[in-house]
Amino acid sequence: MSITLHRFISSLVLLLTTSIGFAQNKIVVFQSDFGLKDGAVSAMKGVASGVSFDLKLYDLTHEIPAYNIWEAAYRLEQTVPYWPAGTVFVSVVDPGVGTSRKSVVLKTNSGHFIVTPDNGTLTLIAASEGIAEIREINEAVNRRKDSQQSYTFHGRDVYAYTGARLAAGAITFEEVGPVLAKEVVKIPYQAAVLENGKLKGNISILDVQYGNVWTNISADLLNQLHPQYGDILQVTFFHNGKKVHQTAAPYSQTFGAVPEGKPLSYLNSLLQLSFALNQGDFAATYHIGSGSEWSVEVTLSPKK
Amino acid sequence: MSITLHRFISSLVLLLTTSIGFAQNKIVVFQSDFGLKDGAVSAMKGVASGVSFDLKLYDLTHEIPAYNIWEAAYRLEQTVPYWPAGTVFVSVVDPGVGTSRKSVVLKTNSGHFIVTPDNGTLTLIAASEGIAEIREINEAVNRRKDSQQSYTFHGRDVYAYTGARLAAGAITFEEVGPVLAKEVVKIPYQAAVLENGKLKGNISILDVQYGNVWTNISADLLNQLHPQYGDILQVTFFHNGKKVHQTAAPYSQTFGAVPEGKPLSYLNSLLQLSFALNQGDFAATYHIGSGSEWSVEVTLSPKK
Amino acid sequence: MSITLHRFISSLVLLLTTSIGFAQNKIVVFQSDFGLKDGAVSAMKGVASGVSFDLKLYDLTHEIPAYNIWEAAYRLEQTVPYWPAGTVFVSVVDPGVGTSRKSVVLKTNSGHFIVTPDNGTLTLIAASEGIAEIREINEAVNRRKDSQQSYTFHGRDVYAYTGARLAAGAITFEEVGPVLAKEVVKIPYQAAVLENGKLKGNISILDVQYGNVWTNISADLLNQLHPQYGDILQVTFFHNGKKVHQTAAPYSQTFGAVPEGKPLSYLNSLLQLSFALNQGDFAATYHIGSGSEWSVEVTLSPKK
Repeated sequence: MSITLHRFISSLVLLLTTSIGFAQNKIVVFQSDFGLKDGAVSAMKGVASGVSFDLKLYDLTHEIPAYNIWEAAYRLEQTVPYWPAGTVFVSVVDPGVGTSRKSVVLKTNSGHFIVTPDNGTLTLIAASEGIAEIREINEAVNRRKDSQQSYTFHGRDVYAYTGARLAAGAITFEEVGPVLAKEVVKIPYQAAVLENGKLKGNISILDVQYGNVWTNISADLLNQLHPQYGDILQVTFFHNGKKVHQTAAPYSQTFGAVPEGKPLSYLNSLLQLSFALNQGDFAATYHIGSGSEWSVEVTLSPKK
Repeated sequence: MSITLHRFISSLVLLLTTSIGFAQNKIVVFQSDFGLKDGAVSAMKGVASGVSFDLKLYDLTHEIPAYNIWEAAYRLEQTVPYWPAGTVFVSVVDPGVGTSRKSVVLKTNSGHFIVTPDNGTLTLIAASEGIAEIREINEAVNRRKDSQQSYTFHGRDVYAYTGARLAAGAITFEEVGPVLAKEVVKIPYQAAVLENGKLKGNISILDVQYGNVWTNISADLLNQLHPQYGDILQVTFFHNGKKVHQTAAPYSQTFGAVPEGKPLSYLNSLLQLSFALNQGDFAATYHIGSGSEWSVEVTLSPKK
Repeated sequence: MSITLHRFISSLVLLLTTSIGFAQNKIVVFQSDFGLKDGAVSAMKGVASGVSFDLKLYDLTHEIPAYNIWEAAYRLEQTVPYWPAGTVFVSVVDPGVGTSRKSVVLKTNSGHFIVTPDNGTLTLIAASEGIAEIREINEAVNRRKDSQQSYTFHGRDVYAYTGARLAAGAITFEEVGPVLAKEVVKIPYQAAVLENGKLKGNISILDVQYGNVWTNISADLLNQLHPQYGDILQVTFFHNGKKVHQTAAPYSQTFGAVPEGKPLSYLNSLLQLSFALNQGDFAATYHIGSGSEWSVEVTLSPKK
């Protein structure tokens, strides 16, 4: 076998492993509060496609309520772990566009990347997946060509563009920009804890279709109280620390365990403590919301 | 040409045909009643992407009304034939999760695969495309790694995972699990028939934007009555066999053929017998629904 | 190196560059007024996938209000420029299906292709990107196999099919059909002009979430009046040339520059002159709509 031929075949193999090679992920997943009625999401994907035709572009959701950073944070925590390592998320819920919030890329310990304004969006995912490194986007170089000339739509011109370039391997993570301290802007919220027999937790989200109330209190934590089905949980709901509602909610395996319209407590599909009315809307009936400002306290009634 | 070189090139060719080869379809199309507001659909696509970066992931719809198996069945029948043979559909409308319904993969005679709980979702597609083979998913092996440890979200951990592996060629159809009898769980409904001059049929779906009522009675079947435009169709609507409404609906080519607010019968865009009010909402006005429990009987008034 | 081997490797290289080759765009972007609740969009993507598994299929929006050609035109103008040259758009808002409107493909000077009924959908994109060439789709050959046998769903059977074949390189642009004159069907609308100190323009769209009113009057044009923040703009709103509302709207940098409920004028995120109520819904309050029939006239009040 001649040297020439050998080199030729080596190049071929290199070409193969580079072009086809699945070593790089090339997946970008978009999240925003833009909705799907106008062209904003499509413009972001157009910019990403212009970086590389080879990318796979998917969505988390674009139905985050306008400016609701908490819900953006929650959806990331809920979804990111199911995507393969190396996936790049672009999350644009950005009420502070034009202010001094930083544009960053978080690399988690699980190997996922999240491109976002550092405005609280990273609160939950940084806690659950851990911070491997955070870099501030150097917007002088990492922006769509000519996009500095007039109005800048950051989601399209900086975040989608930079996320696509990172996913495509056009830039390394280091080329995103300078490394920052391993901290993210955090929205304060009640962590799930058990103190002196009292559970405290945050109301993470409402199951809007049914009006059920979901907390961040895990089955494991709840089980330290050793509740049996039928036992009564005494639950107090707080908004900004102010009591909004109090109820006695039997711990139930099925909604039908209590009469119609009556409250119950149960484990939801994520195995977290939740509250509902049998055949009713708990959140609407008692004016309960969700997000960082909402919390609960739970105790187990003594057995009779 | 040396043996070594020959083997080397053979491997190269094998690699090419395996990696690039478009012989396999690699398309997965998702349907559910999850909506697009939370992360559930995205989590399914994340799991599928983790099986192979090479898959193409598309959607049928995620706006099936909650738990509406009939509509899931209808959308599959309506859409599957337009996708190329080899496409894998993952349909998750699953009110019976946790019960004894089987998890299956249907291979149709047209070469499409449908991964779904066997709860009636396959009623219409099995009838229209035919059953080549059905296999029960062996959930002991065909499930996302570690997903048996706590709560299982079947759509993500079993259906999306298995559908993706099948589409990617990571498993063969045989490796899905044991073959079943060529039967699916069927939702009973009124087949379209002509008996003694009377047409009987099912109300498949409402054209919700306008309130028009669509049946499964084809133009071919209707034409056996030889209706002329302007002829009167006598139509009776039934819910669970009980008469709900009766009307005389002129067979019309255009809605304007009858006065405003008046009923008419016509052929919809699928060439099936349908009913409407000119400039009105037939379904809302007369409380007509759709699904397996709804049927119609139609006769042609004798000519004067 | 033997001839045989040389040829073999050449074929291999050809195979590589053909199969992988990213010279062609292979992206199709769909827009329609179909919504996402039924299977219509999925059927279009199924047909496109059947043309070539290799295509990337994306969406602009499918939430165009039913039959609203103007909004289809606006979304194309807003979004097309952010996609790479060579991208094929399939836009199906087609109230005139079955009438004599032509089915065409526009190639813009920017190298984008738009497949659509020529019913006004191209009004704005033809003006903004320029017409390189327009061809009428020869539906005798450019249609899904067997689709002429019964009811034709043009979006699926002609537009999606032809767009996919063009994107995939299965046909050249010339093979679409005969070349037409460089004209598109135009929806008449008020172009943005400055005449004798009076600005005239069209109300392009409402920012529906907030009820703000967006015009096609650019910052550049407005600035020829040299407005300062705080200056009063006298604005008259017209529907079909008939005066609907008149207001004095201070030119403002922030909404808070005027009291709650009061009108203001400002530059929106596209740097176009817009009108709003601080904390209110301008469009709903004053019954202002958008589209080709709506226009504004604006003058700058003399300084005191």
